[in-house]
Amino acid sequence: LKEFIWSVRVYYEDTDAGGVVYHSQYLNYMERARTEFLRHEGFMQTNLRDEMGILFVVRDMHVRYRKPARFDDYLQIRTRLKEVRRSLLIFEQDIYRQTDLITLASAEVVCIDAKTFKPTAIPDKLLAQFK
Amino acid sequence: LKEFIWSVRVYYEDTDAGGVVYHSQYLNYMERARTEFLRHEGFMQTNLRDEMGILFVVRDMHVRYRKPARFDDYLQIRTRLKEVRRSLLIFEQDIYRQTDLITLASAEVVCIDAKTFKPTAIPDKLLAQFK
Amino acid sequence: LKEFIWSVRVYYEDTDAGGVVYHSQYLNYMERARTEFLRHEGFMQTNLRDEMGILFVVRDMHVRYRKPARFDDYLQIRTRLKEVRRSLLIFEQDIYRQTDLITLASAEVVCIDAKTFKPTAIPDKLLAQFK
Amino acid sequence: LKEFIWSVRVYYEDTDAGGVVYHSQYLNYMERARTEFLRHEGFMQTNLRDEMGILFVVRDMHVRYRKPARFDDYLQIRTRLKEVRRSLLIFEQDIYRQTDLITLASAEVVCIDAKTFKPTAIPDKLLAQFK
Repeated sequence: LKEFIWSVRVYYEDTDAGGVVYHSQYLNYMERARTEFLRHEGFMQTNLRDEMGILFVVRDMHVRYRKPARFDDYLQIRTRLKEVRRSLLIFEQDIYRQTDLITLASAEVVCIDAKTFKPTAIPDKLLAQFK
Repeated sequence: LKEFIWSVRVYYEDTDAGGVVYHSQYLNYMERARTEFLRHEGFMQTNLRDEMGILFVVRDMHVRYRKPARFDDYLQIRTRLKEVRRSLLIFEQDIYRQTDLITLASAEVVCIDAKTFKPTAIPDKLLAQFK
Repeated sequence: LKEFIWSVRVYYEDTDAGGVVYHSQYLNYMERARTEFLRHEGFMQTNLRDEMGILFVVRDMHVRYRKPARFDDYLQIRTRLKEVRRSLLIFEQDIYRQTDLITLASAEVVCIDAKTFKPTAIPDKLLAQFK
Repeated sequence: LKEFIWSVRVYYEDTDAGGVVYHSQYLNYMERARTEFLRHEGFMQTNLRDEMGILFVVRDMHVRYRKPARFDDYLQIRTRLKEVRRSLLIFEQDIYRQTDLITLASAEVVCIDAKTFKPTAIPDKLLAQFK
C-alpha cells in the first residue's frame, strides 16, 4: 500500500493547558494530510467542487491516542488509501514524531454532491487513479 | 451607553501550553457575544443573510490583553455599540472574570452584500433599532 | 443508564467553508459536555488536578457523522457513562438538533497522573460515585 | 527594516461558513510566523522557556482586514521587528496572497517570567541579536 507523508509543526494554537496537543487537533492535521495527498495526486478540492460539483466529507473517524505531542514538535503524518468504493474512500493515517507513534486513525470519507449534500459516485477520473 | 453581557466558560480547547487562554480565542468569545447581542435585539444572522442578503464581517480589531484567563474560568463579555454609521458598527467589548479585567477590545464590523462581499448600507430596520 | 444533557450554540468559529460545522469541532463539543457532566457530579477538573494530581485524557475516540449541523443551530449533547474501570471511563455521546441525530461518538477517557502522564487509578471518591 | 517571510496554506479548518478564513485565524498565522522568525534567528521557544525561564506573550494586537482569503489559498506572512525595548518586542506583520494584501497587523509581544507571569527583561543574548 502506497504511503503519502506530510509533516506539520506543532504551534501554541494546537496545544492545551495540559501542555500537549489538544486531542481534536489531530483530526485537523489528518485532514491537512488528506488535502495534500489529493493535491499530490493532481486533484485540488476547489476544482473538484467548482468543476465537478463534489465535496469529500468525513463520515466516520476513529482515533487512538498513544503518546502526547508537544509544542514545537515536528510530526509526520503517514496516509494510506486503504479502500476505494463507488462513493467512499477509507484512509489509514498514523502520526509519528520521528520513530514515536503518537496517534493512529481510520477515516471514512464520502463523496457528496456539493449542492444536495447527498452521496454521489466518485468521478471516474479520480476512481481510476485511486485504483 | 447600553451594555449587553454574555458569559462564556473556558474549556480545554480554549487554552494553550502556557496554561492560559490562547490569545486569538478571545476574538471568538467576542464574536459569540456580538452574535448574541444581535439575537437579543431580535436579529438572527441567518435571517439577515437569507432574507436581507447581508453579512456582518470584522474589518478592524484591536485587542489589549491585561490578565490571563485560565481553564474553567467563567468570563463575562461586556459589549457596547459605540457608534453606528451607514454600513459600519463600532463595538467596545471588555472581558471580565468577575471584577478582574482580562481583555479589552474595539471591533469595527462592516455590513456587506452576501454575494459581492462589497460594503452595503445597513437595512433601515436594524439602523433604526441601533440608533 | 443515566443521561446528562448539555446544549451548545453553533457559532461562525465552529463552521467551515462547506457551510457546516467542521468535523473536529464535534470533539470539542463532546469534551465540553464531559467537563459539565463532571461538574454536575460535583467534580471540577481544576480540583482533580491541583488536589488529587490527576487528569482525564482521551485515549480513544470514535465518531460517526450522520447529518451536518449549521451556523446558529442549537445542539443537545446526550452523554452516558457506559463503563467504569479502574483507570478508565467509557462514554457514549450523541449530538442532536432537537430530534435530528447529528453525530454519535464513543470516547475512552483515561485517568493519568498529572506529573508522569502515566495511567493511574481513579480516586475512590469518584469511582464510588460513578458506580 | 529586515523582513522575514513565512508561508501558510489555508485548510478547511481555517475557514467559516462565509466561505472565507475566519477572522481570528489570522492571529494564529501571525503567531506561527513569529515562532518561525525566532527559530530563524536561532531561538527556540521551548529553550527560552526551559533554559531561560521566559515566555513571549501577546499584550496588544491590532488587525485590519482588507480582503478575504479562501480555502486552499497560499499566503505569505511578512514579519518585521519594528521596535525592541527592555521587555517588549513590537512586530509589524502583513499577510499577502501573492500581490494581494489580505491583512495587516501590529503586535506587541512582552517577555514574561514563565513562573510569575510578570514582565521581565529580554535576555541580553536575544536583545543583542534583535538590535
